[in-house]
Amino acid sequence: MPKAIAIVSGGLDSVTLAYLLHSENYDLHLLAFNYGQRHAKEIDYARRCAHRLDAEFDIVDLAALGQLLKGSALTDDIAIPHGHYTAPSMAVTVVPNRNAIMLSIAYGVAVAENAEVVATGVHAGDHPIYPDCRLAFIDSFNMMQRVAVEGYGNPNLRLHAPFVQIGKHDIVAIGARLGVPFEDTWSCYEGGDVHCGQCGTCVERRESFTLAGVPDPTAYQS
Amino acid sequence: MPKAIAIVSGGLDSVTLAYLLHSENYDLHLLAFNYGQRHAKEIDYARRCAHRLDAEFDIVDLAALGQLLKGSALTDDIAIPHGHYTAPSMAVTVVPNRNAIMLSIAYGVAVAENAEVVATGVHAGDHPIYPDCRLAFIDSFNMMQRVAVEGYGNPNLRLHAPFVQIGKHDIVAIGARLGVPFEDTWSCYEGGDVHCGQCGTCVERRESFTLAGVPDPTAYQS
Repeated sequence: MPKAIAIVSGGLDSVTLAYLLHSENYDLHLLAFNYGQRHAKEIDYARRCAHRLDAEFDIVDLAALGQLLKGSALTDDIAIPHGHYTAPSMAVTVVPNRNAIMLSIAYGVAVAENAEVVATGVHAGDHPIYPDCRLAFIDSFNMMQRVAVEGYGNPNLRLHAPFVQIGKHDIVAIGARLGVPFEDTWSCYEGGDVHCGQCGTCVERRESFTLAGVPDPTAYQS
Repeated sequence: MPKAIAIVSGGLDSVTLAYLLHSENYDLHLLAFNYGQRHAKEIDYARRCAHRLDAEFDIVDLAALGQLLKGSALTDDIAIPHGHYTAPSMAVTVVPNRNAIMLSIAYGVAVAENAEVVATGVHAGDHPIYPDCRLAFIDSFNMMQRVAVEGYGNPNLRLHAPFVQIGKHDIVAIGARLGVPFEDTWSCYEGGDVHCGQCGTCVERRESFTLAGVPDPTAYQS
């Protein structure tokens, strides 16, 4: 069984990614990253996803990086902006170079474990403000890694981003088909007891269920 | 003054890199990485280099990654191979994807600090067994990063690898010209009290001083 290393935050997108890879019979190793984000509780959702799928699971602790990667509301004491996910105010939630950092670590693990795939749940809804979620980045990163680990690991190792050209509502539809327990995924940037319903990712999450025509099992504060 | 983020291990190459950037009037921020290597004492040499050059200094602690990036003699309980640095037996010293991991983190810091340059001391002597030290990797990584952080940080941000096409003896010659205190750099993979004189990097270090015609101030055990 070919092995896949998947970056899983515990959110709706990455949990659906894990279920998709599982349905394709990959031997799964899920990696969650702690980079000092205030919604670190999402990691519990990633762990439970791994448990349900009988997948390997590791947390990569990059919390010490948080203070170096200054300027993001996800790690600093800046207020989380409310409103739509694609609004310019959301740029403050960018952790500089986050995907390149997580993917390069995932590739290191992939080489060590002879995996065939590194997988990420980036999607088209992330494109407006996150350059490291666009197809150009995925292609460029894949090319860079071919050169970087030439002669090591699995010769077929490649970056897999099945959602990069589709929207979050399409992911909801795919997840519904795969039986993803959406109530056991976490999106909210605030990291409270229940989803706040107002931050960018909550707004986007709600909207995606509506667009997909799938019942939203999420408890929102407002 | 433009800012440079330089990856500095405390070895001869990276300390010379720091002195070179200092001579070119960059505002310097040196990053040392702890990835569970057994020669972690090299980090003290990086710190002292930063102190001498009045540069910012941070240690990025990736020690928790060590157990995930299995299979390298630099982090595991495998014997360090003796002999010439370019021998096939040295492949065991490869930490999978090490340079992509360190450089992507350095780019994150560079974006946060609006730096113009990310610098690495990779050189031609590393080419035979380390694909992530070759020019093709440097070019490919630079391209990937342009895409990854488009619209964020300094628009001129670029990867600088001034030694990528020259050998370690050329670096010794450059260092001698810049007044690098070579006795205050550390190369040995064994991490003992003095340089062992037998591991791959010790063999290469000695040879480089001889080839450069520069007196070697290093104390070797044998």
